[in-house]
Amino acid sequence: MKLLRFGPVGQEKPGMLDAQGQLRDLSGVVDDISGAVLSDAGLAKLRALDPTELPLVEGTPRLGACVGEIGKFCCIGLNYSDHAAETGASIPEHPILFMKANSAISGPNDTVMMPRGSTSTDWEVELGVVIGKTAKYVGKEDALDYVAGYCVVNDVSERHFQTGLTGQWTKGKSCDTFGPTGPWLVTRDEVADPQALTMHLDLNGTRMQTGSTATMIFTVAEIIEHLSQLFTLHPGDVISTGTPPGVGMGMKPQPVYLKKGDVMDVAIEGLGAQRQEIGQDA
Amino acid sequence: MKLLRFGPVGQEKPGMLDAQGQLRDLSGVVDDISGAVLSDAGLAKLRALDPTELPLVEGTPRLGACVGEIGKFCCIGLNYSDHAAETGASIPEHPILFMKANSAISGPNDTVMMPRGSTSTDWEVELGVVIGKTAKYVGKEDALDYVAGYCVVNDVSERHFQTGLTGQWTKGKSCDTFGPTGPWLVTRDEVADPQALTMHLDLNGTRMQTGSTATMIFTVAEIIEHLSQLFTLHPGDVISTGTPPGVGMGMKPQPVYLKKGDVMDVAIEGLGAQRQEIGQDA
Repeated sequence: MKLLRFGPVGQEKPGMLDAQGQLRDLSGVVDDISGAVLSDAGLAKLRALDPTELPLVEGTPRLGACVGEIGKFCCIGLNYSDHAAETGASIPEHPILFMKANSAISGPNDTVMMPRGSTSTDWEVELGVVIGKTAKYVGKEDALDYVAGYCVVNDVSERHFQTGLTGQWTKGKSCDTFGPTGPWLVTRDEVADPQALTMHLDLNGTRMQTGSTATMIFTVAEIIEHLSQLFTLHPGDVISTGTPPGVGMGMKPQPVYLKKGDVMDVAIEGLGAQRQEIGQDA
Repeated sequence: MKLLRFGPVGQEKPGMLDAQGQLRDLSGVVDDISGAVLSDAGLAKLRALDPTELPLVEGTPRLGACVGEIGKFCCIGLNYSDHAAETGASIPEHPILFMKANSAISGPNDTVMMPRGSTSTDWEVELGVVIGKTAKYVGKEDALDYVAGYCVVNDVSERHFQTGLTGQWTKGKSCDTFGPTGPWLVTRDEVADPQALTMHLDLNGTRMQTGSTATMIFTVAEIIEHLSQLFTLHPGDVISTGTPPGVGMGMKPQPVYLKKGDVMDVAIEGLGAQRQEIGQDA
């Protein structure tokens, strides 16, 4: 299934795509795509529906983040071996974790607004993992059973805020609109191997990032294992799993950063595509 | 006013203390101590009530964190000049920000559970600031207008997870039960000067931390100004503002860390007291 949320900011309704890729309204069935709806039992109930009997949504409404009421947005840094090689960084011993503020989460096609003082706003296509079942002290062999599904995340990052403001990385990751998530959550039964997904990001039509989850240093299962030793992962938590080569910070001969009016196209195989225009706070 | 939440984990009801310090049930008036209830208008409605007409709560129920539905839990590191001097660290140019996972937030007297693999779990008494009004690009001269109130936070920290697991600090700050918050939110009208509050933390009856918010490097107003340049602060967000000297990591001749059965007493002048026993995950 492809589950999504549509409507104005803060008033999103749950929905799903039917076999023809048309948007169907789930608001008569569930309140939101969140929490208990993401459990195996909750997803089984939705799977039992006949999408053609659900109301067809007319037009092309805005899409919100594909998960509502996200409890925590965990992000893994430096998790692609080819990206690590590109930047000359050493391979970390454990997954590098930082948090993105929940208030940064936005719809897949919402405008990304550079904050005042931004000098170096950058892109990062990433595989998002949506937790469906409470996970604590989970082993990697069982870890994927705790996944409801997968989605595209653009882990937008202001590099000066990230490293130049005597804080931790979270400063540059948590600006409003810096977390486009979606267009939809693809349930895990439709993702044969999360470690074999190609992905890319285009800036103004030019390919900047090309990668595959095959070059992840820590697999999705290993990341869930590690994080679940630290704290409980709850249904509706999202883990963004790191980015492949090609971010603006790493461009030669000099870094390339976003500017007002730029357009990012972001996609992962089987998980759909995002498009964001860049704006700037006055 | 002193606002709080009482009842079993996940089923907390809103409440307040009356003039005699007795617990009164607010669940007939508001759903929770969160979001819009924390606005000036929301608080004015509660202030207009006669507490003696609210149901008296019998017995001594568990207290939950004094704020529900916390959007983000921002923490400031190394924010006391005497603590910085003690550790030999230099004074940061800007507030050091990290995030504590929302799933770490717990009641003020709940058992703090050390996770598996914990070697060095430590304490940190901190002034918590509860946001009451949406804040973006706020100046420090107006910043305190955006505060609903203040509370005690124990920013429990596993030092090995914090710095020894190739992650950012959030790893050691986000373990389940590592965020005792309360006992109550004291509205800002009852806190004459947030920069003149004494605070302490006792371990098994021995004073470990003694401090005053007077030695903060960045004041509450300056922290709100800085964070609101990075992202929007929303009603119900909490900022924990750093800890004074006396954490276990800094003890001489060697660090002192928590062990099963230890008891922490944590208090800030005018904001009440917490008590946590230490447990350990099997």
